[in-house]
Amino acid sequence: MKLVPLGDRVVLKQLVAEETTKSGIVLPGQSKEKPQQAEVIAVGPGGVVEGKEVKMEVKVGDQVIYSKYAGTEVKLDEDEYIIVKQNDILAVIQ
Amino acid sequence: MKLVPLGDRVVLKQLVAEETTKSGIVLPGQSKEKPQQAEVIAVGPGGVVEGKEVKMEVKVGDQVIYSKYAGTEVKLDEDEYIIVKQNDILAVIQ
Amino acid sequence: MKLVPLGDRVVLKQLVAEETTKSGIVLPGQSKEKPQQAEVIAVGPGGVVEGKEVKMEVKVGDQVIYSKYAGTEVKLDEDEYIIVKQNDILAVIQ
Amino acid sequence: MKLVPLGDRVVLKQLVAEETTKSGIVLPGQSKEKPQQAEVIAVGPGGVVEGKEVKMEVKVGDQVIYSKYAGTEVKLDEDEYIIVKQNDILAVIQ
Amino acid sequence: MKLVPLGDRVVLKQLVAEETTKSGIVLPGQSKEKPQQAEVIAVGPGGVVEGKEVKMEVKVGDQVIYSKYAGTEVKLDEDEYIIVKQNDILAVIQ
Amino acid sequence: MKLVPLGDRVVLKQLVAEETTKSGIVLPGQSKEKPQQAEVIAVGPGGVVEGKEVKMEVKVGDQVIYSKYAGTEVKLDEDEYIIVKQNDILAVIQ
Amino acid sequence: MKLVPLGDRVVLKQLVAEETTKSGIVLPGQSKEKPQQAEVIAVGPGGVVEGKEVKMEVKVGDQVIYSKYAGTEVKLDEDEYIIVKQNDILAVIQ
Repeated sequence: MKLVPLGDRVVLKQLVAEETTKSGIVLPGQSKEKPQQAEVIAVGPGGVVEGKEVKMEVKVGDQVIYSKYAGTEVKLDEDEYIIVKQNDILAVIQ
Repeated sequence: MKLVPLGDRVVLKQLVAEETTKSGIVLPGQSKEKPQQAEVIAVGPGGVVEGKEVKMEVKVGDQVIYSKYAGTEVKLDEDEYIIVKQNDILAVIQ
Repeated sequence: MKLVPLGDRVVLKQLVAEETTKSGIVLPGQSKEKPQQAEVIAVGPGGVVEGKEVKMEVKVGDQVIYSKYAGTEVKLDEDEYIIVKQNDILAVIQ
Repeated sequence: MKLVPLGDRVVLKQLVAEETTKSGIVLPGQSKEKPQQAEVIAVGPGGVVEGKEVKMEVKVGDQVIYSKYAGTEVKLDEDEYIIVKQNDILAVIQ
Repeated sequence: MKLVPLGDRVVLKQLVAEETTKSGIVLPGQSKEKPQQAEVIAVGPGGVVEGKEVKMEVKVGDQVIYSKYAGTEVKLDEDEYIIVKQNDILAVIQ
Repeated sequence: MKLVPLGDRVVLKQLVAEETTKSGIVLPGQSKEKPQQAEVIAVGPGGVVEGKEVKMEVKVGDQVIYSKYAGTEVKLDEDEYIIVKQNDILAVIQ
Repeated sequence: MKLVPLGDRVVLKQLVAEETTKSGIVLPGQSKEKPQQAEVIAVGPGGVVEGKEVKMEVKVGDQVIYSKYAGTEVKLDEDEYIIVKQNDILAVIQ
């Protein structure tokens, strides 16, 4: 089974524990939006979403920083994923 | 009797109990939007909805993950359905 | 006397008691929006409403499921009606 | 003295007491928006209002049902009026 | 010193005391928006305001009813003025 | 060091003490938005801002009344400035 | 590792302590939005973002004043960054 996102949605898999991490990302407690590091698992087709043309800019395998605020957690078989809109992805890590 | 959705609406039938499920989807308690697994029962015609062109991308029989937040529960005869806008469907499960 | 709705509004007449009904629709208590079964009594002309082109898709006599959230109850002579925007109609029952 | 409404505004004069009326309209207590019966006294010119083209569809003398929610009560000389946007008029009574 | 309003703003001077007035306007206590009678002192140039074309329809000397809700009170030298957007002017009194 | 505003932003320098002033502007206590008198120090280039064309209408040296509501106070070296969007400037004083 | 922002996002690095600074910027306590001085580290490609064309106007190395309100703090390796949308940058310091 795999998740095929619709529109401008992206399926992510978290790379790090949510609290803190030694040599990765740290989530400062005073921040309302918790940024998170994740890997892109699947990318929607983009196109016209809510009347606006969206071009997908991330690709499968990208490591990204995203804003958890609008994401939805999903567990399929034994794996957990997060489905976000591409606009909730802040940056790619290179 | 059957439900014929208007515009960009989609009629869904839930596949799993809402709380938890052993080998399907799990709804983490900390998530405000409860994602859910469902089967597509009927699909609206799409077209111009609230001034925006919407192309329907799901089809009858698809298994989907949707965001329950904006859905409306309906019981017709003995069956329960959920009517959502296509934009509330996050991903198709293949 | 009859009600002639403006723009994209539709005049509905409820078919069932609001609480529960044996062989019709049931309104689950946990749902914030109460869906309801109604018959279409009059349909506005559509056209440009709040800057957006709206094409009317329901017709007099249709049985519909609507979202009560934005509707307005009106009593004319001895009859009670609900006036909704077409976008608050979720599906037609066939 | 008379009121000349701007844009898509309409000047109304209430026909019935606000609470209840024997053979007219009844305002159900559970409804947040109180619908009301009124006569159209003056109609604005329409045209582009907040960037959207509005065509006026009611005329002086029409009896209408309106949603009081956004209206403004005005007393000029000894008469009381309500000024609403045309979009707050739900239906014409014929 | 005089006030030259920008965009679709209009400078008004109140004609009546805010509470009540014998032969003018009365502000009903149950109304959230307090309508008020005022004279137009200066009119902005209109044009494109927040991306929308606005044509100014009031002129200096007009007596108007306005919705105080969004207005800003200003005192210049010994005079008090209210600066509103034209859209907050409901009607001209003739 | 000087501040060069982006887009439709304007750098202002307050002319009067915020509380009251004998022969200038007075801020009535009942007003939620506190209008203020200021001098324009720097003007952004305008252009397309959030998808809307903005033409700058104030110039350096103008004395203006602005709505403090959305402004941001900045201290650079020993001077204090306020950065506002041009739309928060209500009128020019001549 | 480096951060490559998407769309109209900009990666910033704070220049000064958040509380006060002798010869730089001071954050007045009464301001809800805390302005901050920062250096631009990376700039997104701009283009169509949420249906609106955005042209990037800041460049790497610029010292800017930004509104912290919508920013997201990120720590990569040992460095802390803030990711903002360009529209949250108020002015460039020259």
